[in-house]
Amino acid sequence: MEHYLDNSATTKVSEKAADKAYRIMTKTYGNPSSLHRMGLDAENELRLAKKTVARCLGASEDEVFFTSGGTEANNLALFGTAYSNIRRGKKLVVSAVEHSSVIEAAKRLEAEGFTVEYITPRSDGKISPDDVEAAVDRETVLVSVMCVNNETGAINPVAEIFEAARSKNPSVVCHTDAVQAFGKTEIKARRLGADLISVSAHKVHAPKGCGAIYIKKGIRLVSRQYGGEQEKKIRPGTEALPSIAAFGVACGEFDIDENYKLISELNSYAREKLSAIDGVVFNSPEDALPYVLNVSAGRVRSEIMLHFLEERGVFVSSGSACAKGKPSYVLGAMGVDRQRADSALRISFSKYSTADDVDALCEGIAQGLGLLAHR
Amino acid sequence: MEHYLDNSATTKVSEKAADKAYRIMTKTYGNPSSLHRMGLDAENELRLAKKTVARCLGASEDEVFFTSGGTEANNLALFGTAYSNIRRGKKLVVSAVEHSSVIEAAKRLEAEGFTVEYITPRSDGKISPDDVEAAVDRETVLVSVMCVNNETGAINPVAEIFEAARSKNPSVVCHTDAVQAFGKTEIKARRLGADLISVSAHKVHAPKGCGAIYIKKGIRLVSRQYGGEQEKKIRPGTEALPSIAAFGVACGEFDIDENYKLISELNSYAREKLSAIDGVVFNSPEDALPYVLNVSAGRVRSEIMLHFLEERGVFVSSGSACAKGKPSYVLGAMGVDRQRADSALRISFSKYSTADDVDALCEGIAQGLGLLAHR
Repeated sequence: MEHYLDNSATTKVSEKAADKAYRIMTKTYGNPSSLHRMGLDAENELRLAKKTVARCLGASEDEVFFTSGGTEANNLALFGTAYSNIRRGKKLVVSAVEHSSVIEAAKRLEAEGFTVEYITPRSDGKISPDDVEAAVDRETVLVSVMCVNNETGAINPVAEIFEAARSKNPSVVCHTDAVQAFGKTEIKARRLGADLISVSAHKVHAPKGCGAIYIKKGIRLVSRQYGGEQEKKIRPGTEALPSIAAFGVACGEFDIDENYKLISELNSYAREKLSAIDGVVFNSPEDALPYVLNVSAGRVRSEIMLHFLEERGVFVSSGSACAKGKPSYVLGAMGVDRQRADSALRISFSKYSTADDVDALCEGIAQGLGLLAHR
Repeated sequence: MEHYLDNSATTKVSEKAADKAYRIMTKTYGNPSSLHRMGLDAENELRLAKKTVARCLGASEDEVFFTSGGTEANNLALFGTAYSNIRRGKKLVVSAVEHSSVIEAAKRLEAEGFTVEYITPRSDGKISPDDVEAAVDRETVLVSVMCVNNETGAINPVAEIFEAARSKNPSVVCHTDAVQAFGKTEIKARRLGADLISVSAHKVHAPKGCGAIYIKKGIRLVSRQYGGEQEKKIRPGTEALPSIAAFGVACGEFDIDENYKLISELNSYAREKLSAIDGVVFNSPEDALPYVLNVSAGRVRSEIMLHFLEERGVFVSSGSACAKGKPSYVLGAMGVDRQRADSALRISFSKYSTADDVDALCEGIAQGLGLLAHR
């Protein structure tokens, strides 16, 4: 029996989405740029997917551009905005707990002569609008704050943050990495006041290798890739149609309210059971997105516990998958002490998660603490 | 009945490759960066695919990096080399008939202050080593010449070109876009003397949204994407595993010699039948790769003929798919006159092509010429 509780790292592709990808690979395999019917059939699939993703983002179709994933979307947001606004200023304001694809892009921009101010979260794990407002000045061209933190599930007040940023500089471009929030809570461009939104397919039961960026009408980005006329030259290259069409199907399957309720109950159940285990503390704030639950288990190092759990068929993560076991800079920025950070586990749910999974997890952690704590 | 003869635009995914992608999406769906077994299973699939692609390129595994496709690979080759050698020089030598992902990247570099010399093919459609040698100087950091032209199938003498380039400047980085050649003729890094090679999955019966770049050990490229530690930071972002694993399977199915023989016969058969039709002339050189056959049919504009053929279930291309019907700069550079270029059709074969397909094509062209030529 497998208990996959690492859905913030990646998800299982839904059956309908996988079937769609398969049909595209073997039947509707034309190139969307081809002028003949097989090309048009492929182009129609592309449009259909774009329409669905756009609807989910409260955007129009021509504001959505497919990328190879969240990393490319985030890179395009940062580099694209920085380069296209170079005459207005060279400062970026970025939260300190962004995904590495934002942080590393920001560092690269620093190396190229841009200034980046990193905003540390308050002890509740959230970025404060006041802190962003204080950092934004006339030279600031971009604010980038994620909707939901990938390690803790902390929900940032993005709409308030963007409003605060614009009160200091009305022309600042506002970007949010919504990779961990999309499909789990309503992410609507206008409601958030976002100019740019990054999303990823493989976090929402669609294939790896696909994502999208919302670019508000009127916002100009310098492209990162040059070639054909695909995606209005914002993102040239033959479209990853099997994954894109599957992404569209997965977005069409979103049932945000229903799943939110289900996952909230599961999260509460997990919190209740874990609270009863001596030595477990919660790193996720109480009001975090229920899909993510970050805990520290006694003094057992994350990796030791992770492997103990996997032997029992329970799959969780230590920090984010992309960090490959490095100490969490997210928990560090939240002021969590090193020892507690070193034993952190990220439990992350999906619509396929069950109470059985939680039972297996809690049993495993309880056993693990008993067996491993004194080694 | 469908006669798909547009395989240079894209190909049908092979059944085994599509099955592999499906299994990855629904079974081996872990994140290759995850530390648990589901992550390791995924990582093993990644390695297996890399091993196969590397073997096909005569490279070692750590010289192959997966990208989102040929466009990204070409962009990485050009920008990556230009930026990492800026102290040595700012000149690039690029053939004038490269794919748009090379040409447009080169133009962008020109806009950024680099110098690009474009080498026009001789009347046989090929780039001459002498012309490249004459263009390379001490400031030249990159030579980029494709193996096989995507519109005509013309085969460039890449090994000789790179040798000639190095005779003028031993430290010049040699890149070849092998997207149209890979899987169709032997592309071995050492035999070509290439430092960088771009390949694409969807041209070899694997999914769209995947490609790879060979980077010879010791060659340094400035990355275009920043984020996690995937692909040794050359290309961060969660790997497109369904497509990558399918790419590996498709590469494992290569039977270059057998298919070359088959396609050569099919090409000869097509040339013979087309020669018998009054008004058909060949734009592909005699010694082109047999997978591509570019012809001009009377004075019927490409698009008119293309749509006439598609009504008969025959799918071909006017120029390259990426150009979406724009006049061919490739045929122009070869000295083909405008009227002839305007009626050019690209017929492109795959291992799935049959004599039946050729019969339907020739019948369609003959009928089309009769019906459309005097309109």
